[in-house]
Amino acid sequence: MKSQPIYLDNAATTPLDDEVLTAMLPFMKETFGNPSSTYSVGRMSRMGVEAARKKVAQLLGVTPMSIFFTSGGTESNNTAISSAIRDLGCTHIITSPIEHHAVLHTAEYYSRINRAPLSLVALTNDGEVNYEDLENQLKELSFSDHKPLVSLMHANNEIGALLDLVRVGRLCKQYNAIFHSDCVQTVGHYPLNLLESGVHFISAAGHKFHGPKGIGILYVHPDLQIQPLIYGGGQERNVRAGTENVYGIVGFAKALELAMNDYAQDSKYITNLKVYMKQGLMKAIPGVSFNSPENSLYTVLSVCFPKSPDSGSLLLELDMAGVCVSGGSACSSGDDSASHVIKALGKSDNCNTIRFSFSKYNTIEEIDNVITILQGILQLHLV
Amino acid sequence: MKSQPIYLDNAATTPLDDEVLTAMLPFMKETFGNPSSTYSVGRMSRMGVEAARKKVAQLLGVTPMSIFFTSGGTESNNTAISSAIRDLGCTHIITSPIEHHAVLHTAEYYSRINRAPLSLVALTNDGEVNYEDLENQLKELSFSDHKPLVSLMHANNEIGALLDLVRVGRLCKQYNAIFHSDCVQTVGHYPLNLLESGVHFISAAGHKFHGPKGIGILYVHPDLQIQPLIYGGGQERNVRAGTENVYGIVGFAKALELAMNDYAQDSKYITNLKVYMKQGLMKAIPGVSFNSPENSLYTVLSVCFPKSPDSGSLLLELDMAGVCVSGGSACSSGDDSASHVIKALGKSDNCNTIRFSFSKYNTIEEIDNVITILQGILQLHLV
Repeated sequence: MKSQPIYLDNAATTPLDDEVLTAMLPFMKETFGNPSSTYSVGRMSRMGVEAARKKVAQLLGVTPMSIFFTSGGTESNNTAISSAIRDLGCTHIITSPIEHHAVLHTAEYYSRINRAPLSLVALTNDGEVNYEDLENQLKELSFSDHKPLVSLMHANNEIGALLDLVRVGRLCKQYNAIFHSDCVQTVGHYPLNLLESGVHFISAAGHKFHGPKGIGILYVHPDLQIQPLIYGGGQERNVRAGTENVYGIVGFAKALELAMNDYAQDSKYITNLKVYMKQGLMKAIPGVSFNSPENSLYTVLSVCFPKSPDSGSLLLELDMAGVCVSGGSACSSGDDSASHVIKALGKSDNCNTIRFSFSKYNTIEEIDNVITILQGILQLHLV
Repeated sequence: MKSQPIYLDNAATTPLDDEVLTAMLPFMKETFGNPSSTYSVGRMSRMGVEAARKKVAQLLGVTPMSIFFTSGGTESNNTAISSAIRDLGCTHIITSPIEHHAVLHTAEYYSRINRAPLSLVALTNDGEVNYEDLENQLKELSFSDHKPLVSLMHANNEIGALLDLVRVGRLCKQYNAIFHSDCVQTVGHYPLNLLESGVHFISAAGHKFHGPKGIGILYVHPDLQIQPLIYGGGQERNVRAGTENVYGIVGFAKALELAMNDYAQDSKYITNLKVYMKQGLMKAIPGVSFNSPENSLYTVLSVCFPKSPDSGSLLLELDMAGVCVSGGSACSSGDDSASHVIKALGKSDNCNTIRFSFSKYNTIEEIDNVITILQGILQLHLV
């Protein structure tokens, strides 16, 4: 009999929390109205949507009118970048080579159609943003007529490198830049106070913190006015058309509420799993090293297993042993070639990279089992 | 004690079918993986998504590779129009004044930024497309260098006027036009064979036929290659980025399957409700007339109640009596001013327009009750 798989790919997606599903179900059954309808059945749905917006706003330290529900992190990233260029006059994009494709490919599109040239910020060896280089680029642009959009993720989804939001927010203010941060890996995992950080746009996705798939938010600083990416009805105060995904919205808010209520305890528990795994791997696997910086996202541990001529596909063998992990982001999992992130960090030649990412549902026993399985695959069981 | 509301606004949204929810739940619980992940837990989700795509394609008479899942009808409409202009060389849009805002506002955007001028097709008094005018416009454009996009909805969401898809498909083929049809009100309510009709794009939304909110499809004719509206990962064969809304997708397919399995019986039942209501209103309300053409969408009955100086808000009074209906689309419900559709049809001056829209869950008793309630509101109980 095959045992349950060990799921260590929580940066790709997370299981839905039972309490979140319980909160969603009434809106999948009796409260089914269209929130734009003003009769009783519609008003109940509208109340669900607006209570969710208020809750999310409160948890992020902003006003409800600055939270817009979208179909997910990718749509939010697209909307932020498009709006910065179309509506806010940005004519240059500064981003990094290790952003998610939802940012990179959108920025590349605007560069390709000659709406905004693109420049990449330098990174440290650890994959963190080189803030001096960022400031130099902003300074240079300030001598020209170019208004920059800075789009830098709060935590990298593959290696977990973190951004100092407040520091970048201060630089953007100083040089009159618009600041967007893809916070898909950090909303629900860190307490954020957006107004304090000075960020203009952030993106988040419900399914990264035990909420539903198909729902995300875009935070838009209240001083900004943007046009829709998706045209149609007047939903979301004319910023995002389409009948609202009511249960998704309710689930997003519930998941964020649970995550923030339990933050102290969950983050401590998950950090402990990561530290335990790192130490265990160092003991068990000779030559192992880590792509994740010392102070990085506590849910992600990117590991460099030394390549050897006869090493097969580590990912495939882990899958066959019932361990769910990925090489990089979900999009590139199963693919043995290194991701754009690992390549940009110059780690693709010597590493078989595996990203382990943890949630509150993982256990020390699972970590022990995975290390034993890895020793077996790497034929180190006698070491 | 207040009784249950009578819900007659099924063109705005429909209650989720219990069987659809049952099909979705496993993907909200154990099968939670990211479909882009290639390990066991991800493959289970991928199988759910691809089985859904195959089912939807089969029910619409097309190949699975021509079905793309989106966040809803609005996004699908936006994607079709954007692609026609950006990727397929369309330089002129022909649409109608009574399209949904998801089409009209998107077309207006492209007209505003000078990418494609917009012309409106003439309508008959009943709100049906004047096919001669459409052909004349297409003929005229064929003398210039303009490649047209024709975007005309299959059934109007407010009055239920129907389009002859095959006839328009033939005209578009003859004049080398791209043909998009917003089928949000007809997918799940009519059997469609898209390949036969010659349409290039159609849009549909799950929540209009007892499926979930937040999920839709875009059908793209297999001969066409389009770029994404939303950039990012390689999901949906590089046409629509973002982690798939797996339960939404599964729910969409299940809802369409149920709708098509039960089509003969449900459509007969609902048609009967509409006819019964129309006859009942004619008997009970002096001066009543109908905005819906004789042969129109069987789920929609748009009624023109004669205006009188002392007539209050019919919508509000119906809501207070527990009857859920709208004046036009959901976006304008509760608003006593006539919708853009009713205005375009020249019916706004003399009508208090109410749209009644039916589903398989409505009953003859509900219709009887609504007619009695209407007599009360209009002070006709003694007539």
